[in-house]
Amino acid sequence: MSLILRVNMSEPCVRVEESAEAYRELGGRALTSALVAAEVPPTCHPLSAENKLVIAPGILTGSGAICAGRLSIGGKSPLTGTIKESNAGGMAALHLAALGIKAIVVEGEPPKGKWFRLVVTKDGAKLEPADGLAGLGNYDTVARQFQEFGNDVACISIGQAGEMRAGAASVAVTDMEGRPTRHCGRGGMGAVMGAKRIKVIVIDPAGGERPKPIEREAFQAALRKFAGILTKHPLTGQTLPTYGTNALANVINEAGAFPTRNFSEGRFEGVEPISGERQHDMILDRNGIIAHGCHRGCTIRCSRIYVDEAGQYVTKGPEYETVWAHGADCGISDLDAIARMDRMDDDFGLDTIETGVAIGVAMEAGVLPFGDAQGAIRLLEEVGKGTPLGRLVASGAEALGKVYGVRRIPTVKGQSIPAYDPRAVQGIGVTYATSTMGADHTAGYAVTANVLGVGGRVDPLKTEGQVELSRNLQIATAAIDAAGLCLFVAFAVLDDSSALDAICEMLAAFYGRPFGPADFLAMGKRVLAQERRFNTAAGFTAARDRLPDFFRTEKLPPHEATFDVPDDELDQVFNFT
Amino acid sequence: MSLILRVNMSEPCVRVEESAEAYRELGGRALTSALVAAEVPPTCHPLSAENKLVIAPGILTGSGAICAGRLSIGGKSPLTGTIKESNAGGMAALHLAALGIKAIVVEGEPPKGKWFRLVVTKDGAKLEPADGLAGLGNYDTVARQFQEFGNDVACISIGQAGEMRAGAASVAVTDMEGRPTRHCGRGGMGAVMGAKRIKVIVIDPAGGERPKPIEREAFQAALRKFAGILTKHPLTGQTLPTYGTNALANVINEAGAFPTRNFSEGRFEGVEPISGERQHDMILDRNGIIAHGCHRGCTIRCSRIYVDEAGQYVTKGPEYETVWAHGADCGISDLDAIARMDRMDDDFGLDTIETGVAIGVAMEAGVLPFGDAQGAIRLLEEVGKGTPLGRLVASGAEALGKVYGVRRIPTVKGQSIPAYDPRAVQGIGVTYATSTMGADHTAGYAVTANVLGVGGRVDPLKTEGQVELSRNLQIATAAIDAAGLCLFVAFAVLDDSSALDAICEMLAAFYGRPFGPADFLAMGKRVLAQERRFNTAAGFTAARDRLPDFFRTEKLPPHEATFDVPDDELDQVFNFT
Repeated sequence: MSLILRVNMSEPCVRVEESAEAYRELGGRALTSALVAAEVPPTCHPLSAENKLVIAPGILTGSGAICAGRLSIGGKSPLTGTIKESNAGGMAALHLAALGIKAIVVEGEPPKGKWFRLVVTKDGAKLEPADGLAGLGNYDTVARQFQEFGNDVACISIGQAGEMRAGAASVAVTDMEGRPTRHCGRGGMGAVMGAKRIKVIVIDPAGGERPKPIEREAFQAALRKFAGILTKHPLTGQTLPTYGTNALANVINEAGAFPTRNFSEGRFEGVEPISGERQHDMILDRNGIIAHGCHRGCTIRCSRIYVDEAGQYVTKGPEYETVWAHGADCGISDLDAIARMDRMDDDFGLDTIETGVAIGVAMEAGVLPFGDAQGAIRLLEEVGKGTPLGRLVASGAEALGKVYGVRRIPTVKGQSIPAYDPRAVQGIGVTYATSTMGADHTAGYAVTANVLGVGGRVDPLKTEGQVELSRNLQIATAAIDAAGLCLFVAFAVLDDSSALDAICEMLAAFYGRPFGPADFLAMGKRVLAQERRFNTAAGFTAARDRLPDFFRTEKLPPHEATFDVPDDELDQVFNFT
Repeated sequence: MSLILRVNMSEPCVRVEESAEAYRELGGRALTSALVAAEVPPTCHPLSAENKLVIAPGILTGSGAICAGRLSIGGKSPLTGTIKESNAGGMAALHLAALGIKAIVVEGEPPKGKWFRLVVTKDGAKLEPADGLAGLGNYDTVARQFQEFGNDVACISIGQAGEMRAGAASVAVTDMEGRPTRHCGRGGMGAVMGAKRIKVIVIDPAGGERPKPIEREAFQAALRKFAGILTKHPLTGQTLPTYGTNALANVINEAGAFPTRNFSEGRFEGVEPISGERQHDMILDRNGIIAHGCHRGCTIRCSRIYVDEAGQYVTKGPEYETVWAHGADCGISDLDAIARMDRMDDDFGLDTIETGVAIGVAMEAGVLPFGDAQGAIRLLEEVGKGTPLGRLVASGAEALGKVYGVRRIPTVKGQSIPAYDPRAVQGIGVTYATSTMGADHTAGYAVTANVLGVGGRVDPLKTEGQVELSRNLQIATAAIDAAGLCLFVAFAVLDDSSALDAICEMLAAFYGRPFGPADFLAMGKRVLAQERRFNTAAGFTAARDRLPDFFRTEKLPPHEATFDVPDDELDQVFNFT
């Protein structure tokens, strides 16, 4: 796996390059961040010719490793102005790996008014006119590709939000059923793809040769060990397959950290109808599917197929973050309405977190009342129509809040805070404030030790130990994102040291050289340091590594907690060597 | 003049304080920036309880000095996130000075859903309910005050834009005829006033005692000298009274620096119908008024009264920046349409520069075509209606451009670049990039030596000498803004060293102690350094002291120029001691 496809939209043309030596052992976030840091001027406009969209499967993707199908997409974010990596499951990463492709780099300025499709096969890649796809949602866009190319391809696409270059625009990746349900959601990578005017990338893996570990048997042995650990761990072996990510709704609500009505309370009285347990029962009652994987080789299977009362497909999941963003954060406790919004988000190509939080801020602004599920659906419909209000929603919570003069906007570096109130989970607050990505729970998921009792215990309401916890998680996460592993393997890694050993043994066998836990963490540190340097050059200082002031001044019920980690401690997160 | 009115909206109540010794010799921008730097946390949300709105007449205001009627309004800007001072003429500063009031400081968080009026008299100040004024434009708002209080008061008010807490919201100040035509336009100070929920401040000077220079005769002598210089200088003595600020339209267009159609060209083929010369003829033909002063004691009289074909009052001016923003920048060459938009801006309470540039960006986004004067008027009407599109326009060019995915957004630190293209006037580009205020021509008006041949000559298309020019002008401007002098006195100061002597002699006589040009410049430096420290603490770095990249990459016709002042030279602007 050594090829880089360089797609120059200024000409437009595609060149196939052999990967530079420096990138040979990199993948996923390590590769997207390295390429962006090397090639994108930190102060450039994210929608300009100088920004690049970098798409890379993880190091282990396609190697036969389980739960290693993540696709990383990087660039300078139009939402945050920082460097950005956002990753998703689905089949595209596996197919790219199967063709020996380490990365697709889309660069330059496309001709005005035209749309393109990029078709990637074993014989290379070509750009084709795609004006006929303009204005379509992701569902219709990919359906046309499968019709044309058959069901064995995978698609990476944008919907109307990406075409509008909106800050909340995601990049969709098709799943095993050919649906555009897996999203590189955060940071507006769909807007960068839209600025490059690529509507869809079709990847046909036929005839390709997937990357092979150098030490085959050692790899298989490590893989079996890893699989056993994942099956054994209660979260990855039981909770996630049974209840999906939305198992968290009751847990986080119970912890008083479930942000309700635009982060004004920590418990939602309407949690039960939208909980993972209720979702599980509804899906089974309606003959939907639980324990569904988002790509081949997933053993955790946290995904599900959500159907309506007539048993007709509506959407995947929905995931915990989506249920929260469109649910509790908007005071909505109607799971069918939330599923409908999830489907719309996937179709328009929107980050469900950013979109839900934006709607919550619109409710705070008085555009519609909290709890108005049908109003929220109507508001979301505006995105598809491209109205000014729809564009505002698609631009995310900060833009919408600014335009409506709202003071309580739950964002860091312009990106919406996800589904854990930092006042009741101080550790995740440290991650939100300091992550190179803007507010991002996946960047250092301190909910583990703070709430779930995974990887030890750190009191969620106290400040002690939170900086160290967040720092260690941010480092490990950057390495996991580089490997192409699903972040959920971290639950096992945190509780069972042999899991990290198994990952390192897979990497050692894959590279054909010694590779231990210290190397794994060193990789994570290199990624973070590189991202942080980019952000500093882009103009970010410690003053931006802060939560909005209302988290320090407004007490969150029921714990009546404020976020109390001192600024000078936040400034220590990146003090690692 | 030693009183500070402290208006605490949290209680709400007003307290009268004696000014602290440290503020005794400060006024205008020096005082607003000192108070903001001392009392506002740099990272606070600009619409939060922690931000303050500081209103201060200049040092010399009310002393009998001519052209010294400026009112400074400061705070943390919702538009830029920087410290902000925006000043205007009109009668309010003189009336505050006449009551011995150095500053009004509005602070805290007002009760939800209520509007207030602040009435300031010789007996103190009181807050009164003003819910009945909510939703009114500035014209109706102040008309009701004059009806109630008589014609000898002055008003400081906000229109619908300020009520919406919009980024382009101005604070209006009434002129000699009691019209709300003078605006602290830039940086959204109207939004801060709106967040404090003060709709209007009425100032009744009756019975007050204006500030008296300590050395009365020396002051009168200096004043006569100063007046003579202003009358003698061709710009302040002839051009400005005759043609107003819009005398610049032809001059700047000729220089190829008249930003046309969202900064895509430097000359506008439709300049003649909107030029100052044409405006002069139209006004006289229609029995309007030229050579109109915006406050008592103005000898320059650059304002005018614009009337329609029937001779009915439409608006003041309009000023050069307004004619450009609503004209050339939008490809519009209809002076009556521009005057109508100027009137709407004044009524809604909008910065004409920010609003015009936002409409230009909307045209670039395809919301309406360039040159569509009636479409621009309709777009502006949306602001009054508070529609999503109207709120976007009122939020300024950067917010609108971001929501519409526009790459060419002519802003620095979120504030729109005014009417001189920095590619054809490199010196003003240095000011735009580095000013503590975001893009602001008044912060260091290098157009003087670059184009007007005032204060020497520096080639506008070359980089040599521009940093020094901008630095010196920024220092002098900060001091002029502190004194409460109209910036136009700078034309005389730059060409005739005795003008600065005269200003310093007035200040020395006013303070009753020696005060020379070195003291004047030291005051300017102190102001800039203080503002810069605030911005640094708010998270601004050298990476933000930059023009948008398209000024470096796109050549501007007719000179085919790019902005070429190197970054490392920009970083030297504040290297003064």
